[in-house]
Amino acid sequence: MWVMENQQFLGERDSWSRAEQFGDGVFETLLVSAGICHALPLHAQRLEASLKRLNILLPAQNLQEMLNDYIVKMVNHSALTNGVLKVIVSRGNSARGYGYDPQARACVSVFYSPYERPEKESYVGGIEVQHCNTQCAIQTQLAGLKHLNRLENVLAKGELVDDCFEGLMSNHLGFVIEGIMSNVFFEKGDSLYTPDLSLSGVNGVMRSLVFKYCERKKINLNVMDIKRDNAEQFSSAFMCNSVMGVLPIKMLNKNNMAIGRVTRQLQLAIESGEIYA
Amino acid sequence: MWVMENQQFLGERDSWSRAEQFGDGVFETLLVSAGICHALPLHAQRLEASLKRLNILLPAQNLQEMLNDYIVKMVNHSALTNGVLKVIVSRGNSARGYGYDPQARACVSVFYSPYERPEKESYVGGIEVQHCNTQCAIQTQLAGLKHLNRLENVLAKGELVDDCFEGLMSNHLGFVIEGIMSNVFFEKGDSLYTPDLSLSGVNGVMRSLVFKYCERKKINLNVMDIKRDNAEQFSSAFMCNSVMGVLPIKMLNKNNMAIGRVTRQLQLAIESGEIYA
Repeated sequence: MWVMENQQFLGERDSWSRAEQFGDGVFETLLVSAGICHALPLHAQRLEASLKRLNILLPAQNLQEMLNDYIVKMVNHSALTNGVLKVIVSRGNSARGYGYDPQARACVSVFYSPYERPEKESYVGGIEVQHCNTQCAIQTQLAGLKHLNRLENVLAKGELVDDCFEGLMSNHLGFVIEGIMSNVFFEKGDSLYTPDLSLSGVNGVMRSLVFKYCERKKINLNVMDIKRDNAEQFSSAFMCNSVMGVLPIKMLNKNNMAIGRVTRQLQLAIESGEIYA
Repeated sequence: MWVMENQQFLGERDSWSRAEQFGDGVFETLLVSAGICHALPLHAQRLEASLKRLNILLPAQNLQEMLNDYIVKMVNHSALTNGVLKVIVSRGNSARGYGYDPQARACVSVFYSPYERPEKESYVGGIEVQHCNTQCAIQTQLAGLKHLNRLENVLAKGELVDDCFEGLMSNHLGFVIEGIMSNVFFEKGDSLYTPDLSLSGVNGVMRSLVFKYCERKKINLNVMDIKRDNAEQFSSAFMCNSVMGVLPIKMLNKNNMAIGRVTRQLQLAIESGEIYA
């Protein structure tokens, strides 16, 4: 096929990136601290499960080793021991058309950037969050995966008003699902409540770590359907992901929320590294 | 940020394709016959409406002229007067993160390939079609758009068994939505029936042409919810898109279907060019 980009003729090509044509792949975003990613096994597990679900060949026999190898190389190249590593694994290139070769070699693209941590006050005093109108798609076979079809996250991000750090997304049925770039947990009476992700959403690595921590510490954690209109019945809530950690919500759609006891406990468990145990 | 691809270090970059990172864009697929695309105005209209919905700046003041300009250039470069032109318009490049600059210049990538038309027998005797298990997402704000988040089409295509030319996709609620790469119409007693696309699906250019044609010819056309389990109650059906035209279904999930009178009429209208009137 012949290719042009922005009026410029690029010549003939056999194929083009399927990530670009269809979003045919997945990604992981890893926090690198002092040259190490503490959640490496969980990222590798999710990556493997996601690639298998999409029928994409694994790019390496041991994905944890592969990710670690990229961290070491990137830290060397950049001389930056703290940063964020984004890893895209896609089904490589092909010509036009949805069909794919089940034996196609996966393509791994890796991006390493300095990390600008949210300011300390966001962790101490909490963040403002708004409800977004942009929906999370309902698609049970893709729910949970951190795949490359993220147009709705882009549109939701565009909705955020000035003071809001994060937005809460719901699906067409009116159920709260997650934040634009994070998962959400609600807290009430020392119990946690988090949306069921079987219809929509991304199963975040920090979400999994919170699950494991709650199990170890016998903290009552409920996975359930939470209607958007009922979100404010909870006294406390937090947003989390594996890069930022746990950020308490101080205001949801202009309604004040208190900072919960379990929320604080989780922040300390991240700081001490206990959460990764 | 520092970039590596498949273990190779590519150096430092300011940004990376948002189409690749998030599927942040849309595309059009045009049939070029004897150097001309007959449905050019409709492609340009849909492209403009889609870009506006996604808040992506238009890459040209007049999109119809832009598309035509690409056709002329590609026909010249390739010396191929019949082909398929795929045009991706994305929100260009950015660093990591969903946020975007509303003033970002759109990026236009254009691919021109020879077109292998389905064999004549598919038009005359019809094609086999199966139901796919892969769902069409329910996301009312993206429904209708030919956006780049097409992972579900890729997965559905992977489901097709040998003899099936196309697959019929339904959403989580069990409503038939469309084909993997086409729209579907059912026929019964000289009336047409086609799925409502307000929850899921792509509003195809050939679908729009069929709507206009039915209006001109006073053919009864009904847009409605059609349950997957009820699809076989119709005596006839066809799949269509702007590249292939109209392909009758001779067998849906191993059940025989007759070829409808309106289906044949539409095939003739495409052949004569009347459908583009």
